[in-house]
Amino acid sequence: MTTTVEELAAMGRSAQAAARQLARTSTLVKNQALLNIAGSLELQQSKLLIENEKDYKAAKSTGMDDAMLDRLQLTSDRITAMAGDVRKVAALPDPVGETIDMTTLPNGMAASRRRVPLGVIASIYESRPNVTVDIAMLSLKAGNACILRGGRESLHSNVALSNLVREAISRAGVPADVVQYVDNPDRTLVDAMLQMREYIDLLIPRGGAGLIKLVQEKATMPSVTGGIGVCHTYVDAAADLDQAAAIVYNAKVRRPSICNALDTLLVHCDIAPGFLPKIAGSLASAGVELHCDHRALSILGPQHGLKVLPAVDDDWGKEFLALTAAVKVVDSLDEALEHIEIHGSGHSEAIVTENYSAAMRFTDEVDAAAVYVNASTQFTDGGQFGLGAEIGISTQKFHARGPMGLRELTSYKWVLMGRGQVRD
Amino acid sequence: MTTTVEELAAMGRSAQAAARQLARTSTLVKNQALLNIAGSLELQQSKLLIENEKDYKAAKSTGMDDAMLDRLQLTSDRITAMAGDVRKVAALPDPVGETIDMTTLPNGMAASRRRVPLGVIASIYESRPNVTVDIAMLSLKAGNACILRGGRESLHSNVALSNLVREAISRAGVPADVVQYVDNPDRTLVDAMLQMREYIDLLIPRGGAGLIKLVQEKATMPSVTGGIGVCHTYVDAAADLDQAAAIVYNAKVRRPSICNALDTLLVHCDIAPGFLPKIAGSLASAGVELHCDHRALSILGPQHGLKVLPAVDDDWGKEFLALTAAVKVVDSLDEALEHIEIHGSGHSEAIVTENYSAAMRFTDEVDAAAVYVNASTQFTDGGQFGLGAEIGISTQKFHARGPMGLRELTSYKWVLMGRGQVRD
Repeated sequence: MTTTVEELAAMGRSAQAAARQLARTSTLVKNQALLNIAGSLELQQSKLLIENEKDYKAAKSTGMDDAMLDRLQLTSDRITAMAGDVRKVAALPDPVGETIDMTTLPNGMAASRRRVPLGVIASIYESRPNVTVDIAMLSLKAGNACILRGGRESLHSNVALSNLVREAISRAGVPADVVQYVDNPDRTLVDAMLQMREYIDLLIPRGGAGLIKLVQEKATMPSVTGGIGVCHTYVDAAADLDQAAAIVYNAKVRRPSICNALDTLLVHCDIAPGFLPKIAGSLASAGVELHCDHRALSILGPQHGLKVLPAVDDDWGKEFLALTAAVKVVDSLDEALEHIEIHGSGHSEAIVTENYSAAMRFTDEVDAAAVYVNASTQFTDGGQFGLGAEIGISTQKFHARGPMGLRELTSYKWVLMGRGQVRD
Repeated sequence: MTTTVEELAAMGRSAQAAARQLARTSTLVKNQALLNIAGSLELQQSKLLIENEKDYKAAKSTGMDDAMLDRLQLTSDRITAMAGDVRKVAALPDPVGETIDMTTLPNGMAASRRRVPLGVIASIYESRPNVTVDIAMLSLKAGNACILRGGRESLHSNVALSNLVREAISRAGVPADVVQYVDNPDRTLVDAMLQMREYIDLLIPRGGAGLIKLVQEKATMPSVTGGIGVCHTYVDAAADLDQAAAIVYNAKVRRPSICNALDTLLVHCDIAPGFLPKIAGSLASAGVELHCDHRALSILGPQHGLKVLPAVDDDWGKEFLALTAAVKVVDSLDEALEHIEIHGSGHSEAIVTENYSAAMRFTDEVDAAAVYVNASTQFTDGGQFGLGAEIGISTQKFHARGPMGLRELTSYKWVLMGRGQVRD
């Protein structure tokens, strides 16, 4: 039983009907649905592991690399962690129904904006099967139905997870069609989904640059793009160099494969001769490779035990997603700002400085979702920013920027309570 | 000197550079630029009227209808009113720089969201030349550059107005390219603009259904669609009928040609026999024509001096933009809600009732940008809702819904002020 292009419209209609019902469902019932999901994840671990094993074996036989295989794999611990995440979302405040800026207008009418669900959220994503549960739980908590379409390589896992979710929520009285999965790995289904403006209020692509580009060019409905982070840390002439060393190390090494990891280190020329050798040892121990401009290269050389290579043009503005960073020595804050403006992706950018004016100029002038003074860019995350959870990180300026939590999965309506007012 | 498709990319680059400069321009300078526009509009009235006369004559010679000609025409009074509108925007608070939800995170980092401009706004619009000044002034106040493309029929007026604006703002030290006009009426320019995702952060189409559809299908950047309002007023069994009569009259007659005007009147069967004859006289005097379902028709008949016709299927969900409304007698609130769900465009919907539960259900269940109890839908307007001004009314749920003011022309960035924090 595989979804056909013809069946997508019916899924869209079911999603809209389910969304309308969910929009009027109490927080208590939504939370019960989430707790049911968590319970089912724990109870049905063995079944999920069997389905995941099919995906894993198939992927391995096609020669998928180890990093990808690791992302694909479910384990008992990972399933337990998923259940824990679902319970955390159940415990978060419900954004739906929140009233914003209630006021009495001069004519006596009470005006407010009331937070309401967006409606139907679709997501097209790759590889990690836990995204299925992530998006389902966050959509549901914010009152939205979702239509999910994961990658071909995790099809068995995704179908098992979405069926589990559908069964669990319907036990709480939430329509099963609040969560629907497009179980046909053919690319034509993606193309057809991108045309479903009539049924889909928001599209969230989660994947590589190719998917993002496809969505930008072909999608007819609003979408939130993000996920690509070319992140700079600029170590200013007035930086506390111990602090800078710790921040740079954390921004690159803590988790090198995520979008908020350091890609290019910019170092002011005044402190570069002292700073770069200072960080060489710890970065070398962590296995970091640096692609250096000629000034950084002349300072670092091979004597520090660090892998250093001359930077090529493509290194500037590159998202490495690995234990690699580009390094450039700059003459001034202005040069750092210009480099970031040209090469940044508008994700996360940091300055390390004790100079007040440099810190103010950096936060004022850098145009990115998250701008840091004296901290690691790896903090860019919905949980870290106090949103409780995140469905992704937006690098666009429209609707939501940076980490998107539950509130960013809602809209609002104006509610006007009159006593017979007419307009002059 | 007419813009070519090849020149659009250069305009985009200039707009981005101008937007970056404007984003760092003080409120005082932006306000001075706006006051300069107002002064120039008053001083250069005769020149503007001459250019407008060219458009008017050309349009008249091609047989444009009187309503359209009226929208096209500038008069001394209208130019004075435009100048007054610009001064009002100058007096509004600047949304840029506002800090939202500043907090100290558990690790001691200060986190806030700071309101910043969107960047470059493009607008494609039809007919009324004052839209040129409207969009330019609102974009500028919110710190955005704009690229404007008005209709062929108002080309001379729009070029004169945009040149006036460019000269006026540059006298205040704001780059002239904060406002640029695409002065080529060829359709290929519109198609090319819709592909300019690299340069345009938000597209605002203002025009008919054909333009909206084109934008939804072809635009590669975020857009705000709206402007189409199929508005219902439901007169409940428990309505105060005097109040209902005044509200229905105002919602249809005050200005029939705007998007928040009444299109379909839904009347509960219990009060229809008393209510419909009650409103017939005043509606007849105003020249209103009603397209009635069979039950409304049997109540109204021709004896009330009102133009009545049997409704056809296309009348439900039709935006009349004229002194015409459809009328349907319904058996229940549920039937009214269902009719609105099927035929409404998500713009403005009203109930007239003294029944508490009916009022609550209507505001909870109707999915529209503005939902009214006991008031005229004609209030849906940025000025009326306390936004100071509006650039349009969004009927989508993404980013902004309902009237869009200055704040809705901004984004935000996360600003994180640390003291050496690194992530565990």
